[in-house]
Amino acid sequence: QVSEAAASAPVCWEERNVTAIKGPGGRWMIPPDAKESMDRSKIGLKGPLKTPIAAGHPSMNLLLRKTFDLYANVRPCISIEGYKTPYTDVNLVTIRENTEGEYSGIEHVIVEGVVQSIKLITEDASRRIAEYAFEYARNNQRSSVTAVHKANIMRMSDGLFLRKCREVAETYKDIKFTEMYLDTVCLNMVQDPTQFDVLVMPNLYGDILSDLCAGLIGGLGVTPSGNIGANGVAIFESVHGTAPDIAGLDLANPTALLLSAVMMLRHMGHHEHATRIQTACFDTIRDKKVLTGDLGGSSKCSEFTADICHRIQDLD
Amino acid sequence: QVSEAAASAPVCWEERNVTAIKGPGGRWMIPPDAKESMDRSKIGLKGPLKTPIAAGHPSMNLLLRKTFDLYANVRPCISIEGYKTPYTDVNLVTIRENTEGEYSGIEHVIVEGVVQSIKLITEDASRRIAEYAFEYARNNQRSSVTAVHKANIMRMSDGLFLRKCREVAETYKDIKFTEMYLDTVCLNMVQDPTQFDVLVMPNLYGDILSDLCAGLIGGLGVTPSGNIGANGVAIFESVHGTAPDIAGLDLANPTALLLSAVMMLRHMGHHEHATRIQTACFDTIRDKKVLTGDLGGSSKCSEFTADICHRIQDLD
Ligand SMILES: CC(C)[C@H](C(=O)O)[C@@H](O)C(=O)O
Ligand SMILES: CC(C)[C@H](C(=O)O)[C@@H](O)C(=O)O
Repeated sequence: QVSEAAASAPVCWEERNVTAIKGPGGRWMIPPDAKESMDRSKIGLKGPLKTPIAAGHPSMNLLLRKTFDLYANVRPCISIEGYKTPYTDVNLVTIRENTEGEYSGIEHVIVEGVVQSIKLITEDASRRIAEYAFEYARNNQRSSVTAVHKANIMRMSDGLFLRKCREVAETYKDIKFTEMYLDTVCLNMVQDPTQFDVLVMPNLYGDILSDLCAGLIGGLGVTPSGNIGANGVAIFESVHGTAPDIAGLDLANPTALLLSAVMMLRHMGHHEHATRIQTACFDTIRDKKVLTGDLGGSSKCSEFTADICHRIQDLD
Repeated sequence: QVSEAAASAPVCWEERNVTAIKGPGGRWMIPPDAKESMDRSKIGLKGPLKTPIAAGHPSMNLLLRKTFDLYANVRPCISIEGYKTPYTDVNLVTIRENTEGEYSGIEHVIVEGVVQSIKLITEDASRRIAEYAFEYARNNQRSSVTAVHKANIMRMSDGLFLRKCREVAETYKDIKFTEMYLDTVCLNMVQDPTQFDVLVMPNLYGDILSDLCAGLIGGLGVTPSGNIGANGVAIFESVHGTAPDIAGLDLANPTALLLSAVMMLRHMGHHEHATRIQTACFDTIRDKKVLTGDLGGSSKCSEFTADICHRIQDLD
């Protein structure tokens, strides 16, 4: 509410609890009022979320992805001035296919002591994520897309993914297209992340690379994330943990959630509001005077937020 | 030959070309004389190797792993004094299961546009690699082993791997055992690699992490590697490319191969020779006077090697 007031972003909030409930037939589902709100508004902002430890309770993140067909996970990783890490000038975006691959959930015991998991790659999902990546690059003034794969090993599945990327690349002549093995990407990433721009990849590789890249700029506490679904639905979220040890103590760092809200505003077309909030947030961090503990300061969450809000108002 | 003379390591070299040939029934195989030499001597040292681009030619690395059941890939990643990277004090070892997992080679088209790849995890291979990791830790004065997994997603396959690690851990009370998700390992690794010691993991995760960790200490040009097989067979190798652009120009950096030979000597029990060569190599690098181009110098490979050899002799 505070940042809404400070930045006057034209957002009308509806709060919904998404904790899964058991629906008809005992299937876990998102509560109907939360589902209805998302279906109508199309846009969600989600805080860190802990899956309840109830027997058989599904991962909330996986259930949300499934319920809203959130097929693209987008993570811009951009070095934050004044927040020191071993890297400077990181400026890349990981785009992760979010619905299939190693996350198919299909596994079997073949014989005692032999288990198989099935990685599922489809033409449709591969084309869809490749298209998203190239559209994203074009709309965000980015010049290249790298497809990350292990088609030397998984020739058919990663091969299909790669083929779709190549096909889509053909239709985006303004964007440079490259291909790189996942292991090579990891090696190059820690040696010189500035060589990367937009990266697109299957589910598991995205799980890994998006966290790796977040690490380069300071971790999940400062990295925003967006999940893009079919039919214009999108959920933006901070992906760090719930930090139960400091719950209620006014000590949490809201940066990841705030920057996710900035992504959300951009997605909604409110670029000016987005830029204003982002600038204020980065100014507060660069200034180093009012920082939460994990950012190296000793301020409370509310003080950090207030500093950002004042700057937003001063920017007006 | 030079380093043998300088360090007087008790090694009797047999040179063999391992380039695969077509055997009976058209199956690709390692040439019999190379196979026979390995079966007899048990120990190999292998330079970088490019798979010929002949139709259907298998990956030479994969074929060697299969032929000699090289089930454990071992990569010590230790910061090299004087060779600057964003990290200092990295001192960890990745131990990769090298025979199964995502490398099963089993893939199918289910229906047009839908492909599955099969990840195969077995109890035997999981126990074997876990045992190797704990034995390695114990024999190399390392205090902890971390099992890297995604058992939250691949509950059955990675679950089996993890269960075997836990079981084996029970029998090594002197070694601390921890478990960590692959994505969390990647995130923590780029933020603070010094928290890790020995890491053990399924095949693909090892492919990724071993290259990532090599990147932390300066890349594949300085990272040694060993492949441990059943029946005491072992092949040590540099895993960098063949750099055809500088072939024959006396410009290559032999460090990775030399340090792999050092691993080989240790494996053979020649610890003193190993330490002498390693110390000389690190001294040459720390000294910065005679370095190959990729290490930031302008010396030839032969000059770099000669400098190391002189130091070895001075150490006597
Ligand atoms: C919580 C878990 C299901 C998840 C994943 O593996 O995708 C997490 O690591 C993520 O990236 O959102
Ligand atoms: C060459 C290729 C088969 C290989 C792999 O994926 O295992 C390589 O990346 C490695 O790590 O040896």
